[in-house]
Parts: sequence; C-alpha cells; structure tokens
Amino acid sequence: MDRILLAHGSGGRLAQQLVEEVFIESLTNPLLASMEDSATVDFHGQLAFTTDSYVVTPLFFPGGNIGKLAVCGTVNDLAASGAKPLYLSLAMILEEGLELSVLKEVVDTIRLAAQEAGVSIVTGDTKVVERGACQGMFINTAGVGRVPEGIVSSASRARPGDRILLSGAIGEHGMAVLSKRQGLTFQTEIRSDCAPLGELVANLVSVCPGVRCLRDPTRGGVATVLNEIAQRSGVGVFLDEGHIPIPEAVAGACEIMGFDPLYVANEGKMIAVVPVEQADDALSAMRRSPYGEGAQDIGEVTEEMPGKVLLRTAFGSTRFLPTLDGELLPRIC
Amino acid sequence: MDRILLAHGSGGRLAQQLVEEVFIESLTNPLLASMEDSATVDFHGQLAFTTDSYVVTPLFFPGGNIGKLAVCGTVNDLAASGAKPLYLSLAMILEEGLELSVLKEVVDTIRLAAQEAGVSIVTGDTKVVERGACQGMFINTAGVGRVPEGIVSSASRARPGDRILLSGAIGEHGMAVLSKRQGLTFQTEIRSDCAPLGELVANLVSVCPGVRCLRDPTRGGVATVLNEIAQRSGVGVFLDEGHIPIPEAVAGACEIMGFDPLYVANEGKMIAVVPVEQADDALSAMRRSPYGEGAQDIGEVTEEMPGKVLLRTAFGSTRFLPTLDGELLPRIC
Repeated sequence: MDRILLAHGSGGRLAQQLVEEVFIESLTNPLLASMEDSATVDFHGQLAFTTDSYVVTPLFFPGGNIGKLAVCGTVNDLAASGAKPLYLSLAMILEEGLELSVLKEVVDTIRLAAQEAGVSIVTGDTKVVERGACQGMFINTAGVGRVPEGIVSSASRARPGDRILLSGAIGEHGMAVLSKRQGLTFQTEIRSDCAPLGELVANLVSVCPGVRCLRDPTRGGVATVLNEIAQRSGVGVFLDEGHIPIPEAVAGACEIMGFDPLYVANEGKMIAVVPVEQADDALSAMRRSPYGEGAQDIGEVTEEMPGKVLLRTAFGSTRFLPTLDGELLPRIC
Repeated sequence: MDRILLAHGSGGRLAQQLVEEVFIESLTNPLLASMEDSATVDFHGQLAFTTDSYVVTPLFFPGGNIGKLAVCGTVNDLAASGAKPLYLSLAMILEEGLELSVLKEVVDTIRLAAQEAGVSIVTGDTKVVERGACQGMFINTAGVGRVPEGIVSSASRARPGDRILLSGAIGEHGMAVLSKRQGLTFQTEIRSDCAPLGELVANLVSVCPGVRCLRDPTRGGVATVLNEIAQRSGVGVFLDEGHIPIPEAVAGACEIMGFDPLYVANEGKMIAVVPVEQADDALSAMRRSPYGEGAQDIGEVTEEMPGKVLLRTAFGSTRFLPTLDGELLPRIC
C-alpha cells in the first residue's frame, strides 16, 4: 500500500495502521502514543490558544513544505501573544490517492520543526476525502502556550513614541511559494523564511516586559499588520524605507511580478512594538536570537495620522501604505 | 457581495470584513472580539486538548449540519476524557463561490451549539481555496477542557467484571447523512443524533469517580470503539444484542443498504466502561441527563477472549464483531 485510500479515514483497521505507522512512529511522545480522544496535561497560568489551517500550494517549496509551515505558523501565533509555545494538535485532511511517501516526508518535517520549536504534538485527527476534493492535503494545527506573568501583547496597545522593530528581511516566503508555483527561476533562489520564533520572543520579552504588541506579518505582510495596529490603537505609524531589510532577489522578483514586498507574506518574522526606553534592549535581544540576526528598528508610532501607515522613502518623500482591498496572493500559507 | 471570494482569505480588508461581519457578529465574546492571534485565558488544573476536522457531505442533513457537528464532535471528544469542555477554536476552509447565506447559516448553528454546550469559541482562522478545491467548506475545531481531579478515562483501563453502558440509540447520524446523500426517503425520517454530551459526562463522573473509559462511538461505530478498548485493555467484551437500542428506522435502512448498525457512526452517544459496583449509579446519572434518557447497560468486560468483542444474539448464539478492514462510509463527519 503506497497511496492513501478512503478506508484510511474510516476509523477501522487501516485508519489505525496509518496513525500508528506514520504519525505515532514519527512524532512519538507518550501523550500522542496513548491515542486517547484528548491529550491531558497539567497546566497552571495564562494559557494562550490559537489555530490555523494550511492550504499552501504547491505542498513543497524552496525552504520548506506545508508541514513545516503548519508547525511554525501556529508556534509563531502563540509567540505573538508573548507565550512560550508548548503543545500542538495536528489535524490532516488527505486526498485519496496521495502518495504515502509524500505524507511521510511532510510528517518527518513536522517532527523536525516541532523538535526545533520545543513543542510536543499531543493530539491529532486524520480525514480522507475523495480524489479531487482537497489537492493533496490540508493541515490544521492548534496550539497551546503559556504567557509569562505581566506580558500582554495586543494590537490595541501601541502608544505614540513607541518604536517598531522587525526581526529580519521581508518577502521571502510569499515570493518563494509564488516563484515555485509559476515555475519562475531567478539567479538567486528565493527560499521561504519559515522558522519558529518562540525563542526570539522569549528573549525579547525577558528584557522588554513593557512590550506593547507582537505580530507575525504573514498574509498581507508587514503593511497589513501595521495597518491593523494603527487602526486598533488609534495611532499613526511612520516607517523608514531605508531601514526595512528587503533581499535583492525579493526586490527583483517583486518588481518583475508587480508586488510590493511590504505586502508579501513572511513565515519567520516578528514585528514588535515596544516603548522607546526599552527599544535598544529589545533590538539587541532579537539580534542575539536565532532568526533575529537581521533585526532592525524600522519606524515609530505617532500621534499624527491616527489609523494610517506611512512610509518615508529614501528620496525624502512620504507615501501611504493602505490596507489592501483585493487579494494579493492566495494559497501562500 | 453574496459569495465567498478568494480575497476573503487574503488577510486584507475583505478578510477583516468577513471576520467582523460573520464570525465576531454571530459568535460574539470578548476573547474572540479582541481579534488577537491567540486567545489568552487563565487556567489551572488538568487540561484536556483535542482536535477534529469535519468534511461531511452534504453540508446539511436531517438533524444538523457541518457546523453543529464541528462543535458537538470536539465537545464530545473532550467529554470522552472526562473533561468539562470550555474553549473551542474554529478554523474554516471555504470554497471560492460559496454562498454567504450558507456560511451564515452554518455559523449561526455553531453559535447555538456552542451556547448549548457551554463552550466559548475564542480563536479562529479562515482560508479560502479556489472553486472545486474543497466542496463547500471544511471545518476544524480544537478544544480545551478541564478534567476533574482524580478522573482518568483511557481505553486501556477496562477490567474484567466492568459493565458497559451506552447512552442511547445507535446508528442515527451515519444513516441520516447517507440517506440524504443518496436521496433516499423512509417512512420515518432518520435524523442525526448530533448533540453535546458535556453535561451527561459531568453527571456521570460525579457519581462514578471510578469510571474506566469514556468514548464517543463516531466513525466505525460502537463495534470499533469496543474493539479498541478490548485490544488496548487486553480484555474481552460481551454485548447483549437485546439491550442495544436500535431505532426501527435505522434497522430498516441498514437492512436495505447492507450496513450493520453496530458499525455506523453516532455523534451524540457516549460509551462508558464502569466498575460493576458503580454501574447502577452511573446508569441512573446518564438517564437523568440531557441526551441520556435511553441509556442502557449493554454488556460486560471479561477475562475470556482478550482483544475480542462478541455479541450474544437474541437467539442465544454468539458472534464476533471484528475490527473492520475496509471503509464503511466516507465523509460522514
């Protein structure tokens, strides 16, 4: 048997085999191996709880695959609430006919990504749908983490004077997926930045307990996240174009395809809005962290222009970065 | 705008609108309304964590729809660990072109089901995939609950002498979905039993702290769940056919279509394996509970025939109920 059959989703013997041979075998930990309907763990404190479905196409792209995305994306949503990510659920919707080797490769990646992120996959579910009904696989992960006492990250907490920090270069995930999908090749391959940011956030909040807001700029990119913060906090956001790290290959690909890198998805970056007096410490903590080497202070929060995001260009002019109406890039995560 | 567009999944203005107008509007609670990447709640004790994806087709069937299923299924998985269900996540994968009215009806059902089950939907996600890529919608819910101190429900804890309790009539969910799918009508309409069982389980564990194992017999039905318990506990299971409540309409439909009701999915039933000395109290508690009126003692756990499930028929003979190899009914949940 080298392909997924409808019977793998029936709850019968084949379903049990699939779970044991693919999931338990690879993702082994005592909670998952118990195969109960729920995992049970002892928990005390502020619990962060989040969910995301992953429907990216193609399933494999330079720098990652749907499995790595499903771990990092949910880990990063927990980190964005200031939490230490602890436990993930893993729910897969598989298409009849999917090669078992593809599933195994994705699950192996999930294992490695979870290991790196320091999270355990403690509960799961598998459904199988007929050929043509889901394009390979969809994955949902939900996550549970613990928020350190006193830390509150919210898009409504930005205040005039705060600094805006960005953990590194932008645009890589979206352009990597799109290039692969369109069959485009560039001189320098663009690889997804997909990475778990739990440690980066832990380092940051330990020296910057006053952090106002953490957000990972995925769908809609940096501009969309900052618009949300500007609107919900009732403040303006001014960015310095020259301080925003954009890899040359991303800039080139965006120019050819007509995208603005500020709206392109990232899967391994964090934006932190921090009080000005803790900004230097926060930036240093980011730069000492894995995946934060390229962190930059990219702008400030203002009283002027509440609800708006503005970019000071390299030429000294200023332009608005509006919230986008239409769709930029479907199925990039 | 009366249909789902790809742009509703982009993270831009339309995505924001959809979340605000459909989800926040209907499922309103302060945690969800905060629209942060994670919900944060205070939690102390034994935490139960589970997930399930729902891919049922058709989306609407007698007695429920995919939304009701997505709430009840995950609530019941928490209940099956003995937990009081508390918080759910809601992740939707929507197909481009889906009528907004259909989405709204499903979300309204989700609201009502969550209300009845006493759970809050505190975090969510929406993805949109191209026309033809998911057949209307898929839903994933993950759930968090609190397990009362001292309660341990596990498929490996059944002991010889234990009684097997079933909370009511079987086979309704699977046959309701299948009849609808095949366009079959019977004299008596078969309606899904889809229902939240948190209160039933809370009542049961309060008088039966020694409960060995709780399981909701969904995919694969009663026979599959009992096989799992028999195998994992290393015990035999003997059922009395005459004590298993099977509605006449279900029995008739199963006969016509060639199904055994013991393998047909339920979405509002619980199996409880309990020590014999607490069995009467447990059964009374079930019967006093919503959705437990028809509860029955259906059999016993034995030392003989470890790993096997046997049915004593009305005629005095005995037959095996094996674990099924193939697929019985795809897409029923």
